[in-house]
Amino acid sequence: MGMTSLLLSTAASATPYSQATLTHAERLHQHALTSDSALQTVESLTTEVGPRLAGSEGDARAVAWAQAKLQQMGFDRVYLEPVEIPHWERGYADARVTLPFPQPLVITALGNSVATPEGGIEASIIRFPTLADLQAAAPEQVSGKLVFIDHKMERDKEGRGYGPVVKARGVGAVEAAKKGAVGLLLRSVSTSSHRFAHTGVMRYIDGVARIPAVAISPPDADQLTRMLARDSDIRVKLDLEAMDHGTTTSYNVIGEITGDRKAEEIVLIGAHLDTWDEGTGALDDGAGVGIVTAAAGHILALEQRPQRTLRVVLYAAEEIGLLGARAYRDAHKGELDKHFIAAEADFGAGPIFRLDSRVNERALPAFDQMHALLAPLGVERGHNHSWGGPDVSVLPPLGVPVAGLSMDGTDYFDYHHTPDDTFDKIDPDAIRQSAAVYTLFAWLMANAEVDLRPIPLPEER
Amino acid sequence: MGMTSLLLSTAASATPYSQATLTHAERLHQHALTSDSALQTVESLTTEVGPRLAGSEGDARAVAWAQAKLQQMGFDRVYLEPVEIPHWERGYADARVTLPFPQPLVITALGNSVATPEGGIEASIIRFPTLADLQAAAPEQVSGKLVFIDHKMERDKEGRGYGPVVKARGVGAVEAAKKGAVGLLLRSVSTSSHRFAHTGVMRYIDGVARIPAVAISPPDADQLTRMLARDSDIRVKLDLEAMDHGTTTSYNVIGEITGDRKAEEIVLIGAHLDTWDEGTGALDDGAGVGIVTAAAGHILALEQRPQRTLRVVLYAAEEIGLLGARAYRDAHKGELDKHFIAAEADFGAGPIFRLDSRVNERALPAFDQMHALLAPLGVERGHNHSWGGPDVSVLPPLGVPVAGLSMDGTDYFDYHHTPDDTFDKIDPDAIRQSAAVYTLFAWLMANAEVDLRPIPLPEER
Ligand SMILES: [Zn+2]
Ligand SMILES: [Zn+2]
Ligand SMILES: [Zn+2]
Ligand SMILES: [Zn+2]
Repeated sequence: MGMTSLLLSTAASATPYSQATLTHAERLHQHALTSDSALQTVESLTTEVGPRLAGSEGDARAVAWAQAKLQQMGFDRVYLEPVEIPHWERGYADARVTLPFPQPLVITALGNSVATPEGGIEASIIRFPTLADLQAAAPEQVSGKLVFIDHKMERDKEGRGYGPVVKARGVGAVEAAKKGAVGLLLRSVSTSSHRFAHTGVMRYIDGVARIPAVAISPPDADQLTRMLARDSDIRVKLDLEAMDHGTTTSYNVIGEITGDRKAEEIVLIGAHLDTWDEGTGALDDGAGVGIVTAAAGHILALEQRPQRTLRVVLYAAEEIGLLGARAYRDAHKGELDKHFIAAEADFGAGPIFRLDSRVNERALPAFDQMHALLAPLGVERGHNHSWGGPDVSVLPPLGVPVAGLSMDGTDYFDYHHTPDDTFDKIDPDAIRQSAAVYTLFAWLMANAEVDLRPIPLPEER
Repeated sequence: MGMTSLLLSTAASATPYSQATLTHAERLHQHALTSDSALQTVESLTTEVGPRLAGSEGDARAVAWAQAKLQQMGFDRVYLEPVEIPHWERGYADARVTLPFPQPLVITALGNSVATPEGGIEASIIRFPTLADLQAAAPEQVSGKLVFIDHKMERDKEGRGYGPVVKARGVGAVEAAKKGAVGLLLRSVSTSSHRFAHTGVMRYIDGVARIPAVAISPPDADQLTRMLARDSDIRVKLDLEAMDHGTTTSYNVIGEITGDRKAEEIVLIGAHLDTWDEGTGALDDGAGVGIVTAAAGHILALEQRPQRTLRVVLYAAEEIGLLGARAYRDAHKGELDKHFIAAEADFGAGPIFRLDSRVNERALPAFDQMHALLAPLGVERGHNHSWGGPDVSVLPPLGVPVAGLSMDGTDYFDYHHTPDDTFDKIDPDAIRQSAAVYTLFAWLMANAEVDLRPIPLPEER
């Protein structure tokens, strides 16, 4: 039992937020809209640390940076929690068409890919418009070839184009190898027309050959398609040096503002500290780190403490499989019922355009009232089947309420997982708005007189 | 004497174009606006050949492609003219900040740069906002360091932001070496915010140490500036494999439609066939190749031959110093006085927004009338001090009239000399308009009853 029966009884009342809470909310709102602290935090992280692939030397520096940052901000508690992770390293990567139209291709190894044998591999390519087309193909067609999956991603404010395409990144190499392919060339999971290849994690399974897997930039995918229109036999050489360094330890970095009346109850706002290795991780997820630390910083600057404990979690190793999120879930098993609500910022810098939730229906009026305060920031009222964000998504199956402060991701997949995810891509107005929304959300949740549980049962994903 | 006194006497008349010429011009106009032949030519060149750096294997394939293309189009004469050129090769290139904020940088070697010594060089950087600031610096400040010139290029429809900035690309390494620098890091001569480094040619001079020279992407230049705001001592390691392969032979590829009445008089329309090595040279200058060959193709499709000879020149080795242009000028010294007019398309795909010229003032009414035919395509009437384009610019000092069909280059320097200069960047409507303008220009000039000489004296550039 997390919430008291007193709270349960007040949940249905019309006053989830006290007058004092609302007065402070107004002060926070004004303060957040004149603060560049989220932007400055992203600038510091992306400049001083830069790339921070889980397990790398940059990741270790990011953990040290985050610990020092939270301490310097004056959190009541700052602590690290270990996360065991694999350490993969990209190394050298090269691909080129050898025949009949010799020229280099812009590629990037998918995360977790094996290397090619010394000297590389060379094979004819076979194109499939989608993963399903590969799955439907006869093995004789595919055997000995490099499979080229050319599935274009659709641009969408909420990133709904990602799901249908990204599946091929995860399982494409396994599906190709089952039919005897020697490698995977995946059209980047991307909405960009620029010549960047988008990396991201892929998986092998036991019993299926481990073949090298790379993403090619959208213009290079189109180039291969044009070549195939001229000649059915296009030969590509692939040379990858990807290295598996075994397992190592990274850390979730956690900062807390201790609640003054319900300290054992936790409002969690999170983002992930790790990135892919080619950009500096400004949008993914330096922005989230900036937003949630700025929100906590604004609350720290109040003379009034929140009633509940506000916990900022900077997750390790999100990119390679939510490993920090799972470690957090396991380490905090005993207090998950004290988690009042959780939310994660991991979709760029914003702006936030919608307030979603997954809470008990009786508590929705508290979200409606929160929405009334967020509406002047351009936030719409959303639905009640949010998953809360990637790392936070492991919590609702265990009963933890979540919110989704949905960000405008129209351009997100132009930069996501590429070398071009750099500080200059952050819109200062957007990240200021996002930090203001998180500030109000965190403050209101830390002080709400309402019970959010039990939450609606998770649907099948 | 190129022009007859008969032509001279008609130059002042109000009818530079016969009714038959104008009737055919109208037919060409209609045909050009429904044709995708320029686009298809760029697609063919960029797909089948791809990168074609002067002296490379791709360059040789481009020459073969062009020769076959012009022959297949049915030009009356197709021939190659040799051009002796240096063959430089990029090879491997890597740069990274080593201290205090270790991370990789996106760079590209400038064309003609020497390699670093085996194992690379590592040094502290010193930033100068402009080349002039470097030139004004004390050698003690610069000695032993990597000079970082951080001059931002301004976006401009006519590319007027290029000149003030590109000078540092040419002479920056020499100026830095004079003061004892060990290398040059140049902010890319670019209007882009994407993480591409822009290459381009640089020069050494005898008696000054040859130091390696690279461009860094705009976001990386900003990153170095942010680092310098935190710590005056930023160490960078540079590792370049650039190779000088000595001299080799490339070719200007020339196609002619023989004039039926004044075959010895030449209307030259040109573009350059070579490119930098990282993109596929779609905008620079596959588009120009597509535009001028399409213009000739439309004229070839008429039952009526032009009066003058229309000569399409696809220049070799423009990028590394107008070497094809100089070879053409020298090889054709004896007939330069028969060059009625010349123009070059080398500023992307268009659209063409202005008609400029450098012709005798008495001939301007012929350009005003040409303009009246081009105005429906969105072309303004321009000035009379055009240089005609990079390769063609070597001709006016020898008395050859030129025209400038000025293209909208607002976005040109976003892609120019980067890996991102690929076919998808060509706007089909823009290149169709440009080809239509070149078609009308070439036809009208090949049939004009006017004398364009003597041209106004060239100004100092
Ligand atoms: Zn993320
Ligand atoms: Zn990510
Ligand atoms: Zn050019
Ligand atoms: Zn160029």
